[in-house]
Amino acid sequence: MLRKLNLIAVSLAASLSAVSGQTFQRLGTCPTLGCVLPPDQQDFLPGQQFDIRFEVHAPKNGSEAFNNGVPDEQFTATIAKDGGKAKSIAEYFDVSAEPALEKWTFHWYEDLFAHDAKTPSVVNVASKIYRRVALYEPGAYIVTLNYYSGKTTTATWVVRPIAKEKKAKNVIFFVGDGMTTNMITAARLLAHKSINGKYQSLMAIDKFPVVGHHMSHSIDSFITDSANSASALYSGHKSTVNAMGVYADSSPDLFDDPKVETIVELLKRIWGSSWGAVSTAFIADATPIALTAHTRSRYAYGPLIDQALNGVSNYSWTEMDGPDAYFGGGAEQFLPGSGSYLGKDYYAEFAKKGYSISLNKTSLEKASNKTKALGIFCKSNLPVWLDRNIFPANLKNLTNDPSGAKASATDLPGLKEMTLKAIDVLHERGGDKGFFLMSEAASIDKQMHALDYDRALGDLLEMDDTVRAAVEKLKALGELENTLIIVSADHGHGFDVFGSADTKYMAAQDDDRHKRNAIGVYQNSGLSQYTVEQPGISYGTGANFPVNWDPRYVIAAGLGANPDHREYYGVNKTGSRVPATTIKGKASDDYYVNPNDHPEGFVVNGTLPTNEAQGVHSLTDVPVYAMGPCQETFGGTYGNIDVFYKMAACLGLGQPTNKTITSGCQAEKGKGKDTGKGKDKNWVTI
Amino acid sequence: MLRKLNLIAVSLAASLSAVSGQTFQRLGTCPTLGCVLPPDQQDFLPGQQFDIRFEVHAPKNGSEAFNNGVPDEQFTATIAKDGGKAKSIAEYFDVSAEPALEKWTFHWYEDLFAHDAKTPSVVNVASKIYRRVALYEPGAYIVTLNYYSGKTTTATWVVRPIAKEKKAKNVIFFVGDGMTTNMITAARLLAHKSINGKYQSLMAIDKFPVVGHHMSHSIDSFITDSANSASALYSGHKSTVNAMGVYADSSPDLFDDPKVETIVELLKRIWGSSWGAVSTAFIADATPIALTAHTRSRYAYGPLIDQALNGVSNYSWTEMDGPDAYFGGGAEQFLPGSGSYLGKDYYAEFAKKGYSISLNKTSLEKASNKTKALGIFCKSNLPVWLDRNIFPANLKNLTNDPSGAKASATDLPGLKEMTLKAIDVLHERGGDKGFFLMSEAASIDKQMHALDYDRALGDLLEMDDTVRAAVEKLKALGELENTLIIVSADHGHGFDVFGSADTKYMAAQDDDRHKRNAIGVYQNSGLSQYTVEQPGISYGTGANFPVNWDPRYVIAAGLGANPDHREYYGVNKTGSRVPATTIKGKASDDYYVNPNDHPEGFVVNGTLPTNEAQGVHSLTDVPVYAMGPCQETFGGTYGNIDVFYKMAACLGLGQPTNKTITSGCQAEKGKGKDTGKGKDKNWVTI
Repeated sequence: MLRKLNLIAVSLAASLSAVSGQTFQRLGTCPTLGCVLPPDQQDFLPGQQFDIRFEVHAPKNGSEAFNNGVPDEQFTATIAKDGGKAKSIAEYFDVSAEPALEKWTFHWYEDLFAHDAKTPSVVNVASKIYRRVALYEPGAYIVTLNYYSGKTTTATWVVRPIAKEKKAKNVIFFVGDGMTTNMITAARLLAHKSINGKYQSLMAIDKFPVVGHHMSHSIDSFITDSANSASALYSGHKSTVNAMGVYADSSPDLFDDPKVETIVELLKRIWGSSWGAVSTAFIADATPIALTAHTRSRYAYGPLIDQALNGVSNYSWTEMDGPDAYFGGGAEQFLPGSGSYLGKDYYAEFAKKGYSISLNKTSLEKASNKTKALGIFCKSNLPVWLDRNIFPANLKNLTNDPSGAKASATDLPGLKEMTLKAIDVLHERGGDKGFFLMSEAASIDKQMHALDYDRALGDLLEMDDTVRAAVEKLKALGELENTLIIVSADHGHGFDVFGSADTKYMAAQDDDRHKRNAIGVYQNSGLSQYTVEQPGISYGTGANFPVNWDPRYVIAAGLGANPDHREYYGVNKTGSRVPATTIKGKASDDYYVNPNDHPEGFVVNGTLPTNEAQGVHSLTDVPVYAMGPCQETFGGTYGNIDVFYKMAACLGLGQPTNKTITSGCQAEKGKGKDTGKGKDKNWVTI
Repeated sequence: MLRKLNLIAVSLAASLSAVSGQTFQRLGTCPTLGCVLPPDQQDFLPGQQFDIRFEVHAPKNGSEAFNNGVPDEQFTATIAKDGGKAKSIAEYFDVSAEPALEKWTFHWYEDLFAHDAKTPSVVNVASKIYRRVALYEPGAYIVTLNYYSGKTTTATWVVRPIAKEKKAKNVIFFVGDGMTTNMITAARLLAHKSINGKYQSLMAIDKFPVVGHHMSHSIDSFITDSANSASALYSGHKSTVNAMGVYADSSPDLFDDPKVETIVELLKRIWGSSWGAVSTAFIADATPIALTAHTRSRYAYGPLIDQALNGVSNYSWTEMDGPDAYFGGGAEQFLPGSGSYLGKDYYAEFAKKGYSISLNKTSLEKASNKTKALGIFCKSNLPVWLDRNIFPANLKNLTNDPSGAKASATDLPGLKEMTLKAIDVLHERGGDKGFFLMSEAASIDKQMHALDYDRALGDLLEMDDTVRAAVEKLKALGELENTLIIVSADHGHGFDVFGSADTKYMAAQDDDRHKRNAIGVYQNSGLSQYTVEQPGISYGTGANFPVNWDPRYVIAAGLGANPDHREYYGVNKTGSRVPATTIKGKASDDYYVNPNDHPEGFVVNGTLPTNEAQGVHSLTDVPVYAMGPCQETFGGTYGNIDVFYKMAACLGLGQPTNKTITSGCQAEKGKGKDTGKGKDKNWVTI
């Protein structure tokens, strides 16, 4: 069983949210006192493994107080397919023994007034969980929870059609974290020259034949985070903010929540393909780690790296033996110490399993394509494209050497180098079985949070350049026709460009109101000056990037969701922007304008709670660009979970029976192996 | 010749912009001193009529001062196709006599410092214009202007492929003015219920099979307005902010700029189809009027209504005899008086040409489908959906009776009623020749300008409801399979939703910083309360609209581009929002927080020049939804002009020869008629 984690994770679990309220919720997926997880309206791939949890809630106090806070322990549950006869869960899934009853208590706040008054509502819970089941036949299933002598909660689940045929040998899934159509438009403006309204060159994604939109909302809030949204894209199941590969339950244990099988688990189990993840974030960050993570808390970084390498170890689950290529930042979870799981050296753990280990670009380039490859190039996130390419002096201010030395990491690959190497390794190791690669431009999101528009757009352009290079690489390998390439995002930020700013004029004005007159809107926005060469100045970053990041006339942009900050719109030359800071003598989570951020600019007071130091995610549907086999299925508008079902259909992952990688043939349902590693034996064997 | 217009229009012409600067430009399409209009890089439909203007600039002062301010009057120009022999313009287009030389002077400011110092740069101009020519053969054409003994400016024009076949009988083009994907996402959240992350119903446009993105930038500024962007969509030619159906020249005359033929002019000339425009704006507003307008200034409302009815009258041009259905607001241009062209009664002018005239919904419904139909339902813009349906008391505060009576217009159709009636009329009148209808939800834009998110989203939902009803109507008429339906926008606003706001909590807090803590982000955004029925409250607006517009927990949204204002996020019950106002004793164009707008909210100081009272347009690519014949051609990413070329290809408007509606057969090139109405006889006959 995994240890309890750091304070952030624990406090998150303690303030679990529920549906009865809005700002806070008792349990978002459970508006009544009886909870079925997966809840009503969920979809499944045929054969996709998952756990089922039932909870009966007994609020002790508050507006929902019931039964003196005593939950019904005699609850029962049934499942029926397409109007057929209802059977007990144990009978339907052939469970040898009923799972043990679990009990716990949690609390939540009904609204902000209750929160301020420190009057929590306390809820006692009785629960059971049925682990590792699957539904093989397409159709609708009605699950019914009976509790409190006559109360029922029902959930309708839909198993989608069988998809046995593998139409794409390979899938490359580019995730521009937080990337919206608005940002793509701005990045194009910066990097591509337009003459009389006509672009002389275009982004790589502009040339993709199919565009769609996906809806990113979470299962219980309309604004999501990168953990849950990645998980929806990878598993076909939405969940709660901060959760990955599970439906969030109300228990305090961050690792006991009901799981769902992810795309790489399915692909490995069914076809034995190779897979990899590349990110400019620390590799334990939400978007890369959600491929393998099953937890209520994205902040359990150390244990999640162990899950990535060894698979789920506390319950019987799809066997995994780690990615074939795994490149990014985040040495903290690999160096032995407080950041790693059980304090172990995860460079050594990976090496023991046969991985080559690269800690810089030079080593990465030399690594064999035949062995599994780990590349960790720095602590924390990789420095962004703008600092690596335009302001390299900023790299030297960091103490981020991935070996743990007190030095700066300077021999750094970018997203392009990591992605191209991953393709080589995965192509070699996947062979005829093909591969799946997720490549994440993480700092589009991270820099948008910091309101550092230039750095965010720089990393967006780096991703686009990587897409361009990946297409060329696939062509060279003879794999372009066999590869479905998807470029999408997990959620948005409310960014847009609304004009230009004359930085010279703004700096020359004395007060905020006059400074604002430097903004040119409509016809006064003019043309992009980022594409205009300055005599004697060369940034040397080639085509598809701005030739000037620091023109007099810059883009004026904003988010609508901000902390207090100042805007000058010019590039931040000394490193990533810090728009808001705390003030000595005031609360440690009360953020004000950072006096050192763009003193030449004007103040924009915030729209966010004052404990937010940065911007936040937004609601907007995000774009999906598709090219390759099955591209036509990605047009139109759909949910983020549908991105998973479309990829899964193209990869032939909708199998009517269970198959395992170890046997290479179909295992009979109910005859699988029991590793016995879990604390909880009440799973259904396959 | 048309009279000089109102002051707004004249002052616009006086401050004509140019490219040498950024905030201001000498002439956006002319970075050198020799100008070719249409400029370099422009595309044409085979057979599309246009004018060609050449200008030679001689700046008298400023950084570009040249030749003592004396422009070269001896300039010459040639054209050559695909590397062929260059011929003079007159020879190539078979012009009987060279056009007369024109001369004028204009001024501009090199930057904001020059503007503040009142030091304009003065430019003298020599010019010629060749009117009403066309290129019939696909390929590249090089136009060269020779001036100042050795200087040259070249323009490469591309005539796109022939498209003779008519694949769609009808086209309905819905324009959500200012509508972005972000707004569509927000509108869906308000109107459609989601259970555990799955929408139980969807927008009509969510069901369109094909999605694309178009780039909205203008020819000489990256932020556009609705005039120029509509014109690009309708003609395949980008232009300058405020211009429609012309390339903006530097002359003071607002009606002498070089024209391009629009989609309805082409459709009428080539196929004799019927066409109509419907808008919730005043009908002389940019989006509807750009179908027929040829002017440097969108503000020439009266003359543009005359152009809509009678076609271009100052030069020989495609013959037009007015739309078949024309429904919207804007009685000011129809009632005799200062708002109408030459002070005439345009109700009478339309009636003289056989139009039925409807001034209210009841009359509209009864109007014959066999005769041309004009419907003007109020002065100014139509009241928005929210006021018509949820807060009808607000309608009574207006003095907007379209008959000119001092009364409020209350028997009002909405976009749906106008659009369905237009389909009936156009279907009846078009017969086998089919029809083109543009239907505009104008107040998505207008209310976003006012930061009135609810009213904007209400009108977006009204458009979606109209799309749904139009599909049903076409089905009933047996025309659905014959009709290409496009739903798109002309440009965006940087709107997005970033969380929820607890209005009760916000109102209870004493200061701005505490009020901001009412904002719930991520998991605290919760679920949409707009879809939750309140016992005893019914808005009676049926499916596909919110069941509650005034919940305690509302969406928190913003634009990034704002005047000073206050945010409370709750619905504005007494009418459209006025976020900023002037202050007595301060300048009349200096805007501050409106003290009467949401006093319960917190202040957000602006990011725009302080003379902007409202939000402004943004850069983002906007979505294109397509269904019907040729739908597959609308996937991917492209320019706004490509929307025209795709529609034109589907309608068979790319004809290698000229055809006229009057003869019903192909007229020979060079043999067209000369109406002789224009002040300028130097056009090329066809």
